[in-house]
Amino acid sequence: MSNLTTPEKPRGFIDRIGSAASAEERIVRAVGAVYEKWGFERLETSAIEFTGALGKFLPDTDRPNEGVFSFQDDEKWLSLRYDLTAPLARFAAEERQNLPKPFRRWAAGPVWRNEKPGPGRLREFWQCDADTVGSASPAADAEIIALACEAVEAAGVSRGNYALKVSSRKLLEGLLELVGVPADAQAQRLTILRALDKLDRLGPQGVRALLGEGRKDESGDFTKGAKLSAGQIEPILKFATSTAEQPTPDAILRLWNEVSPDFEVIPDSIADTAVKELAQIFDLLQAMGYLDGRVQLDTSIVRGLEYYTGPVFEAQLIGGGGANLGSVGGGGRYDTLVARFTGESVPATGFSIGVTRLATALVQMGIDQASEQTAPVIVLAMDAARMGDYFAIAADLRAAGIRAEVYLGGSGMKAQLKYADKRDAPIAVIQGGDELAKGTVTLKDLKLGAKLAKDLGEDREAYAKSREQAQREVPRAEVVAAVQQMLAR
Amino acid sequence: MSNLTTPEKPRGFIDRIGSAASAEERIVRAVGAVYEKWGFERLETSAIEFTGALGKFLPDTDRPNEGVFSFQDDEKWLSLRYDLTAPLARFAAEERQNLPKPFRRWAAGPVWRNEKPGPGRLREFWQCDADTVGSASPAADAEIIALACEAVEAAGVSRGNYALKVSSRKLLEGLLELVGVPADAQAQRLTILRALDKLDRLGPQGVRALLGEGRKDESGDFTKGAKLSAGQIEPILKFATSTAEQPTPDAILRLWNEVSPDFEVIPDSIADTAVKELAQIFDLLQAMGYLDGRVQLDTSIVRGLEYYTGPVFEAQLIGGGGANLGSVGGGGRYDTLVARFTGESVPATGFSIGVTRLATALVQMGIDQASEQTAPVIVLAMDAARMGDYFAIAADLRAAGIRAEVYLGGSGMKAQLKYADKRDAPIAVIQGGDELAKGTVTLKDLKLGAKLAKDLGEDREAYAKSREQAQREVPRAEVVAAVQQMLAR
Repeated sequence: MSNLTTPEKPRGFIDRIGSAASAEERIVRAVGAVYEKWGFERLETSAIEFTGALGKFLPDTDRPNEGVFSFQDDEKWLSLRYDLTAPLARFAAEERQNLPKPFRRWAAGPVWRNEKPGPGRLREFWQCDADTVGSASPAADAEIIALACEAVEAAGVSRGNYALKVSSRKLLEGLLELVGVPADAQAQRLTILRALDKLDRLGPQGVRALLGEGRKDESGDFTKGAKLSAGQIEPILKFATSTAEQPTPDAILRLWNEVSPDFEVIPDSIADTAVKELAQIFDLLQAMGYLDGRVQLDTSIVRGLEYYTGPVFEAQLIGGGGANLGSVGGGGRYDTLVARFTGESVPATGFSIGVTRLATALVQMGIDQASEQTAPVIVLAMDAARMGDYFAIAADLRAAGIRAEVYLGGSGMKAQLKYADKRDAPIAVIQGGDELAKGTVTLKDLKLGAKLAKDLGEDREAYAKSREQAQREVPRAEVVAAVQQMLAR
Repeated sequence: MSNLTTPEKPRGFIDRIGSAASAEERIVRAVGAVYEKWGFERLETSAIEFTGALGKFLPDTDRPNEGVFSFQDDEKWLSLRYDLTAPLARFAAEERQNLPKPFRRWAAGPVWRNEKPGPGRLREFWQCDADTVGSASPAADAEIIALACEAVEAAGVSRGNYALKVSSRKLLEGLLELVGVPADAQAQRLTILRALDKLDRLGPQGVRALLGEGRKDESGDFTKGAKLSAGQIEPILKFATSTAEQPTPDAILRLWNEVSPDFEVIPDSIADTAVKELAQIFDLLQAMGYLDGRVQLDTSIVRGLEYYTGPVFEAQLIGGGGANLGSVGGGGRYDTLVARFTGESVPATGFSIGVTRLATALVQMGIDQASEQTAPVIVLAMDAARMGDYFAIAADLRAAGIRAEVYLGGSGMKAQLKYADKRDAPIAVIQGGDELAKGTVTLKDLKLGAKLAKDLGEDREAYAKSREQAQREVPRAEVVAAVQQMLAR
C-alpha cells in the first residue's frame, strides 16, 4: 500500500490498557460517592463550550489560545474545557432561575490543556470537582476543605499521607498593597501570582528571579519577570516561605509582622478581611475535627488559575519526613466568575481533584486500586468445525461468573498456548478429538505448569510427570466445577 | 459590569443533572462487566488524535472537515475522535508487536461529530465498544454479535425488546457488480451505501431519489444522488427491502433470485463469499442459541461508516408489534482500517453501543436505570455562630450512611424550608436556641408535612395540629436513630 499513515498519537496524550484504563473511573466512583453523601448533585456538561463562555484564566499566556484547544464552527469559536469550573459558572448563570441557592454540585471528566508538550506532561487528564455556588460564607469554604479531605481519603490516601494546605489570595493582595504594587497593575499582579505558584518547583531563588527581571529555564527559554524591586521582593518571599504553627489570626498577624515590623493591618483592609475569613474557616475546621494535621495554614499557597478571589487550598501528598510529594488537587473561592455572565456577584467556592495525577501517585505509593479483574480462562480452538462447542464451554464458564474466552484462529496448539501465556491465563481448556470421543475435556493449569517447568529445569522425566500433575481430564459436564476448583487453589 | 458574556452552550450539546448525569456511566459499568467476562481488555485512548490517524470515514462530506472537529497544533492537525474504532486501529498498529493476537479490547467514552446542528441531534455522545483485531474468522463476527446481545441486555433491555439485524457489505457489493456499477466507482458506491443506510428514515421513495438524481429534504437542501438508472435502482431496492424467513444460505439465495431470475451467484464471486460467511456466522449463532429471535438476517442493513468490508450489524429496539424503535448500536467487519498504517491486512470486527442514545431510549421505555440516590436530609442553619454544631449533626448522619447537608447562608427559617423543598429533602433538622438549651433537636418530616397541609386545606386548627404530627423533638444524641426511623416509614 502506498501512502501509509504513521500510527502515532500527539505528544501529551497516552493509551492505557487493562486495569490502568479504568483508574480514573475507580477514583471518580469512590470520590463521587462521598460528594453525593454530602448533598452535592452530579452535573454533566459537555467537553465543548463557546470559547467566550470559558474565558481565559490559564497561566499559559505564551501558548496558542492561551493554553486552550479551540476551533471555529459556523463562524463562532468553540473550545475544549480546560477545567470543570468555567463550565459550571456558565451553567449556574444559564440556569440561575431554576437552581436551589446555594447550589452544590459535583462533576467528573476529562479536561484539556494545550500546554507545551514535555515529558510526563499530559494534555488530557481527569478532574473530579465539588463546588458550592451562591454562598459567600466562610462556612462554605470550610465545608469544601473538609470534603476535600474526605475525598482524598476515599480515593485511597491514608491520613498522614496528605495535607490540605490553605491560604488566601487576599493575604497576597494585602501584602502587594503594602509593598506598593498598584491595585490596577493587573498584568504585574498576575505575573507575581504565577511566580509564587512555582515556589514548589523552582525554590526561592527561581521565584526571586521571576519576581524581578525574569528567568531563563533549562531549555534556554526566557520568562519575563514582574520587575519588582528587591525591597518589594524580599517581604513577599519571606511571607510566602514563613510557616505558622497554628492557623489562628494571631499567628497570621505574627507572620505578617515578621515580614516587616512596619506592616500594620489596618481594620477593614483587605489583609484584615483575609485574616478574619481564614480565622472563621479554621475555627469551623477545628470544631469539625480536621485540624489534626490534615488541614494546615500555608502562606506559600496561591494557585495558578487567575479566577480565585479569596481562600485557596491545595491537597498535597506527604511522604516520609513530611516531604511534599506534589499536589493532587486544589481549589478556592471565585466570587466573580459567574458575574462575567450575570453582572451580579455570585459567590462560589470549590475543590478539584486531579484524578489522573492521583491515579499515578497511588500506583507510585504502592496503593493498589486495581479491580479484582482476573485473567481469563482460555478455551482452545482445536477444530475449526467445532467452534460452537468451544463457545458453549466458554458460555458455561461465564454463566458461573468465570471470565473466559475462546481462541480465535487456526493456529496449532503451541501457538494457542503461547497466546494463553500472553493473556496470563490461569487455565487452558482443551477438547480435541480424543476428548470429544470420550465426552471429556482436559484442563491445563498453566500457572502450576510454568512453575513446575521452572523448578525441574532439565530433568526430563520429572518434567513429563509434572505435566500430568498440572493437567486433569474431567467429564464435559464437570468442566465448570473443575475450573472453579483449580482457580480456588 | 460592561461586556457581559451570554451564558449559553453551542447547539448539539447538553447539560444533565442528578441521576441523568450518570446515565452513561451506569450503562458502561453494566456493559463493561459483560465485555470483561468475555475476555475483552479495557483500552483508554485520548479524545484527541492526529487527524490523519483517524482518517475520514464519516458520511458528513458536506460538513467542515467532513464531520470532524479539528484544530491545528504546532503545524499539525489534530481532531476529536468521531468513534472508538479509528483510535483502536491506530493503537493496534502502533502496538502490534506487543499485543496478543487476536486482540480483544473494549472501550467507552464520549465521541464528537461535527454534524449539522438540529433538534435532538447531539454532537457529543458516548459509545461503548467491543472489538476483535487480528482474526478473519466468521467465528469472531459471531462472537461479537452474541456479545452485542448480552451487552444490550446487560444495559437493561429485555429479550423481545431488541433485535440484532445482520447483513454483509459483500452482499451489496455483489449486487452492485451484477447491476453494473464499476468496482472502481468509489464515490458512486459510497453514495449508494449512504442512500441505503437511510432506508429506515426516508423509506423506499426517499432512497429511490437518492439512488437516482437526488433528493430535496424538508429544509430545502438538495442531496445529490448516485445517478443510477431505474433498471439498476429497482433490484437494489428490492433486495434491501426483502426479508428472509430463515438466515440460511438457501434463503439468501432465494432472495437473490427474487430480485432478478437472471442473477446467478458465481462460485467464489463476492456474493458467493458473502453468502458463505453469513451462513457460517448464523450456524454458530444457532449453536450458541441466539437465533431465538434475538439475531436476524436483514438485507436492508448497510451501516453508514465507510470502513466496513464484510458482515455488518445493527442493534434495534423493538416496540409493540415488532416496530423498529431505532438503532442503539452497530458494527461490522473492517479488514482494511489497520492496514492504513501497517500496509498488511489486519482483519478486525467489532460492535459499538450508542450509550447516550440507549440511555434516552431506556427512559422513554420506562426502564428505570436511576441509582438509589435519595434526596438529602437538610440541617438548618439557625445561628451563624453555631455552624460547627450543624456540621457535626450532618457528619453524624453521614457516618450512619445518610445523605445530609447543612444550609449555607443567613436566610430565615422560611427561606431555608423553601430551599429544603427545592432539594426535595425528606427531613429538616432544626436546633434553635430553645432546643440547644434543652439539648434536643426538632425533626420535621417534610413529606408528611406537605401531605397533611394539602389534605387539610383551609382547616387552620387541624393544620396547626398536623404540624405537631409531622415533627418531633428528640435528644441531640438520638438524632441519627430518629432520622433513620423517619426515613424508614
